Amino acid sequence: MKKIKAGIINVTGYTGVELARILWKHPGVELASVTGRSAAGKKLGEVFPHLIDTGLTIASELEGQFDVVFSAMTHKASAEAIIPLFKKGVRIIDISADFRLKKASQYPEWYAFDHPAPELLSQAVYGLPELHRNDIATAQIVANPGCYPTSAILALAPLIKNGLVEPDLIVDSKSGVSGAGRTLSLQSHFAEQSDNVRAYGLDGHRHLPEILQELAGLDQSADLTVTFIPHVLPMTRGILSTCYARVKTGRLGGGQEELNRVYSLFYENEPFTRVVQQPPETKQTWGSNYCFVYPVMNQKTGKVIIVSCIDNLMKGAAGQAVQNMNIMFGFPEITGIDSLPVYP
Amino acid sequence: MKKIKAGIINVTGYTGVELARILWKHPGVELASVTGRSAAGKKLGEVFPHLIDTGLTIASELEGQFDVVFSAMTHKASAEAIIPLFKKGVRIIDISADFRLKKASQYPEWYAFDHPAPELLSQAVYGLPELHRNDIATAQIVANPGCYPTSAILALAPLIKNGLVEPDLIVDSKSGVSGAGRTLSLQSHFAEQSDNVRAYGLDGHRHLPEILQELAGLDQSADLTVTFIPHVLPMTRGILSTCYARVKTGRLGGGQEELNRVYSLFYENEPFTRVVQQPPETKQTWGSNYCFVYPVMNQKTGKVIIVSCIDNLMKGAAGQAVQNMNIMFGFPEITGIDSLPVYP
Amino acid sequence: MKKIKAGIINVTGYTGVELARILWKHPGVELASVTGRSAAGKKLGEVFPHLIDTGLTIASELEGQFDVVFSAMTHKASAEAIIPLFKKGVRIIDISADFRLKKASQYPEWYAFDHPAPELLSQAVYGLPELHRNDIATAQIVANPGCYPTSAILALAPLIKNGLVEPDLIVDSKSGVSGAGRTLSLQSHFAEQSDNVRAYGLDGHRHLPEILQELAGLDQSADLTVTFIPHVLPMTRGILSTCYARVKTGRLGGGQEELNRVYSLFYENEPFTRVVQQPPETKQTWGSNYCFVYPVMNQKTGKVIIVSCIDNLMKGAAGQAVQNMNIMFGFPEITGIDSLPVYP
Amino acid sequence: MKKIKAGIINVTGYTGVELARILWKHPGVELASVTGRSAAGKKLGEVFPHLIDTGLTIASELEGQFDVVFSAMTHKASAEAIIPLFKKGVRIIDISADFRLKKASQYPEWYAFDHPAPELLSQAVYGLPELHRNDIATAQIVANPGCYPTSAILALAPLIKNGLVEPDLIVDSKSGVSGAGRTLSLQSHFAEQSDNVRAYGLDGHRHLPEILQELAGLDQSADLTVTFIPHVLPMTRGILSTCYARVKTGRLGGGQEELNRVYSLFYENEPFTRVVQQPPETKQTWGSNYCFVYPVMNQKTGKVIIVSCIDNLMKGAAGQAVQNMNIMFGFPEITGIDSLPVYP
Repeated sequence: MKKIKAGIINVTGYTGVELARILWKHPGVELASVTGRSAAGKKLGEVFPHLIDTGLTIASELEGQFDVVFSAMTHKASAEAIIPLFKKGVRIIDISADFRLKKASQYPEWYAFDHPAPELLSQAVYGLPELHRNDIATAQIVANPGCYPTSAILALAPLIKNGLVEPDLIVDSKSGVSGAGRTLSLQSHFAEQSDNVRAYGLDGHRHLPEILQELAGLDQSADLTVTFIPHVLPMTRGILSTCYARVKTGRLGGGQEELNRVYSLFYENEPFTRVVQQPPETKQTWGSNYCFVYPVMNQKTGKVIIVSCIDNLMKGAAGQAVQNMNIMFGFPEITGIDSLPVYP
Repeated sequence: MKKIKAGIINVTGYTGVELARILWKHPGVELASVTGRSAAGKKLGEVFPHLIDTGLTIASELEGQFDVVFSAMTHKASAEAIIPLFKKGVRIIDISADFRLKKASQYPEWYAFDHPAPELLSQAVYGLPELHRNDIATAQIVANPGCYPTSAILALAPLIKNGLVEPDLIVDSKSGVSGAGRTLSLQSHFAEQSDNVRAYGLDGHRHLPEILQELAGLDQSADLTVTFIPHVLPMTRGILSTCYARVKTGRLGGGQEELNRVYSLFYENEPFTRVVQQPPETKQTWGSNYCFVYPVMNQKTGKVIIVSCIDNLMKGAAGQAVQNMNIMFGFPEITGIDSLPVYP
Repeated sequence: MKKIKAGIINVTGYTGVELARILWKHPGVELASVTGRSAAGKKLGEVFPHLIDTGLTIASELEGQFDVVFSAMTHKASAEAIIPLFKKGVRIIDISADFRLKKASQYPEWYAFDHPAPELLSQAVYGLPELHRNDIATAQIVANPGCYPTSAILALAPLIKNGLVEPDLIVDSKSGVSGAGRTLSLQSHFAEQSDNVRAYGLDGHRHLPEILQELAGLDQSADLTVTFIPHVLPMTRGILSTCYARVKTGRLGGGQEELNRVYSLFYENEPFTRVVQQPPETKQTWGSNYCFVYPVMNQKTGKVIIVSCIDNLMKGAAGQAVQNMNIMFGFPEITGIDSLPVYP
Repeated sequence: MKKIKAGIINVTGYTGVELARILWKHPGVELASVTGRSAAGKKLGEVFPHLIDTGLTIASELEGQFDVVFSAMTHKASAEAIIPLFKKGVRIIDISADFRLKKASQYPEWYAFDHPAPELLSQAVYGLPELHRNDIATAQIVANPGCYPTSAILALAPLIKNGLVEPDLIVDSKSGVSGAGRTLSLQSHFAEQSDNVRAYGLDGHRHLPEILQELAGLDQSADLTVTFIPHVLPMTRGILSTCYARVKTGRLGGGQEELNRVYSLFYENEPFTRVVQQPPETKQTWGSNYCFVYPVMNQKTGKVIIVSCIDNLMKGAAGQAVQNMNIMFGFPEITGIDSLPVYP
């Protein structure tokens, strides 16, 4: 396998370091440079002892030429770092939200900044392979999806695409603490979050416009409403989303069996997304790129409930980013991300 | 304070032992006898070292005369233990589900047994003080509510009672592991449940008919549908329920402010249920009898979201049982259960 | 019970807020003022929702007259806050280390500051009631012991006092994360500390001189060496110390039975320290002021192993502080701190 | 890579299923059969959804011919299963303790059974590659070390081999719950073990004779005494051992620097055991075959303290078993077990 040269901007967050873990072992990649402001000059294995064998030093800026750069910066800073690279022709996978939304006007509304390059938004491809594989293959910028949107969209896409449910959807998501990042906060303090669960973002979470945009793209006739409430649980990794929808009158007459068929067909060739026959658990995906989806029909109430789960740092972030890279560079899609979940 | 004599049937489960902890310190109670088949003959403090100072011995059967007996048996066995006591005139607080449902026909449907004394169901009072305080005061049998129903009903009651929302409700509940009891199971094994979340009961959880019965009792004109999905999280205690409802056309025009007023008024004199102004967290209730309720209005989507939380072994079980006992015997309602939450 | 007026300096750390929880319910105390710089002006119940019912407002400075002041400041700042109060005749319980060590020269060595009032060190009493009850009763300053020292000294005192073991001791302690306080740090981040254990302080932990001073005080003929290694575990509360000592030649010929007698006799009238017959677990003390001590003799190796455990925020901090206050003001020693552990 | 045929006896325990995870991806292995009594006939991916893609069915007995068989049975049953395979010439890696001890008389003493084939004990090789690599290469039976012994022996071997410390050693080990296996027990119940730490085996843990045997083998002149106390912590995976030894008079005059040299030299060519310069944490090894060893010299007390840590299911069980298999069959030693730790 001929190796491409890759760089990671901001390796010191959880997604950055997870990318380093994967790319270091990826047979088609030479991980040439990793950056991180606070830890610049230190060995990667000193800051992250689990990477003791990588030998990399954290730089303050990317050095050299790259085939692909992953940006794991926060929003706004990511766009600023990416734009010059884009102009040089580097292919980019952006883990931040900066190229996910198609409407530039949503950035001031949801992220409180004016997008510095709105003309690029239409070129960027939303990096959910299950929906946009062909476009990802040729994209120069891939906007890697948010962790919650990945779980929510994969749970609901088959229903929306097939017009089976009413457009008023509820997504109740449960996330591990690593989703809030490595930045310190009282709410991520062990003593505060241990043995505790809390809802947040009740006045509108930033991942909502992404979910809406992508689901709306599947059925432009629908006037979708999504109520999305995220929760943080005392666990490190994992997102489980429980989604609620009402069956449209006259649809899904075949009940659970038809529902299973719809989902199985939708995901039949997917390397990572699996339709399962019992309620999935986040621990079943730990450290892997799997997404498990479990759709259930309740005939009495006319509701479909879909439970999905992922490892938020893998399929919800770094793993999916590498999946996108594999598609972009013609590697077999599972290369470097085919390790089985670590259980228990 | 003149002391009443109390007994606990099945002290060796989590609710039983929590009752022992509370009653041992209750100034109006003499905890005279506790039973437990597997541990009969042992000192309570040997089986539960945190109760080392109680000096009680676990009996195989209740011995002596009692003013009140708490049954913490499992369903069916509980009814069988209670009926003879009832006939002797003992007042009973049943932690099991055996006297919660008013329709005898629901027992074979939801609990797979025929109720041995259906004629008593109408005499039993559903022990949620916020709804049935006056009836509890004079009841001979109080059916202590389930943990999930306590959190769900307290979250939704003000909306239903005032006819403010459409009758199609969603309750997404998140529970700690102690809710599944002290009985061994693979799913409660630390290595399986740690860093893990799972949904269960997707084909109908036993607490659903209780929730429906009690909410329906608040507005007999409504044809209620409740979709209730419980989840287990990696924490020991606590239930957080996130409830979703659609505002009826023309109601709640006063928005969030009106919503707050409705809830504050409904719970204004309650000693334990508090309407709060920020999302509550289960840890804020640990070891206490509080229920925190947080209602939020979303004008865009027309939804009301209510987050409630409790300690499942306290307000969701033993604490509420003692609250009921206090009401039944004329003690100040907070006696013995006024300790503040242990935090963090 | 006539009420004394109490204040808490720095209520916003874990010990401070635990003191507030206890003192609010203490029948002999009026909790008159609590301070906290960062949260000054806020309601205590806003910052700590579990204290929603206290009604206190956090002040920037203590206001009014006090019979007793608890200082939960960090070292150095605590001494500076205490000295003026001392001069006014207020009785003080200092949770920091500032009055624990008798030799002023140890402060620059272990805490990197020069003690501002070395002349007061001899007046301060080390607040471990099991060793210094009589002196505590009349002290104006009580230096509340560190959490690790409480567990280590109570484990080893009977052996040292009776001259039964060689003076070369090992204390391997395991602590919950709350011991590191509420201040943010990467090591206390949930995602870093969950499912993780680490040793620290291998070049000398600040609690070592305290342990040495107090054990040496029990047998001045011994030339004690203590090797003390603390560890942090993924739990919120609790310290378990495993202590290792070698039996002196010719001592403890009566084996385990004699060992039990020695310990039982030493602690026979203690209200909180219990000698137990099976290995204690930190969870058995959660939220209580208990210390459980379990001594074991190994005849083959000539070793005595003692396992002790406490709730680090109770017997290891706030609970013990209130125990000291009770002794100082003539309240029954268990007043306000007699609640049973919350289990599980 | 030519594939060898491998089987796993008792795939349904945590070591068995971890072996399946590794072997399924091992490029030199065809995982041909896995057994498990309770789940016989079920798909492996049904019992363990994280192995959904393996396609294997759990058999009641091994079927077919094998180059190597891993036995993950409990002691006694394992020997009984292995002996017939041994006679057929199959090479065996026994995860149980049945071939670890050289003296047959230790089996009735420590494991309460008479060894069925004492004549094989001398042929079996203790499978710690750092000590016995050459013998492992040609062994027909490899006795895979216990998890605690792996961490303890690797921590102490350099000191004993070089005769640097007094022979009276203390090993204080901290383990995750998975070390107790997948079998149900009250002590492994989430609600009991969460937020809890306990010592056990204070009257002698079965792993002690292994530790003694292997350390004694490094310096036959020493009359070793080991005090070994294991603890269980609220985490799923990981063992951290803190070991205490006294420097022999006149040795290690070069202090910390000499100590580092001794350790670095001892492990210089090891693919998995790393000498580190800061206290290691179990999380840094999660899912990997690393052992981190951190030796510290305390000049004042004359003590050496060594902290080691491993993932108990990897280097402490399945990972080390595969390392042994690689040595036995001439694969590069890291094949199939070179994945980096999953962090955080």
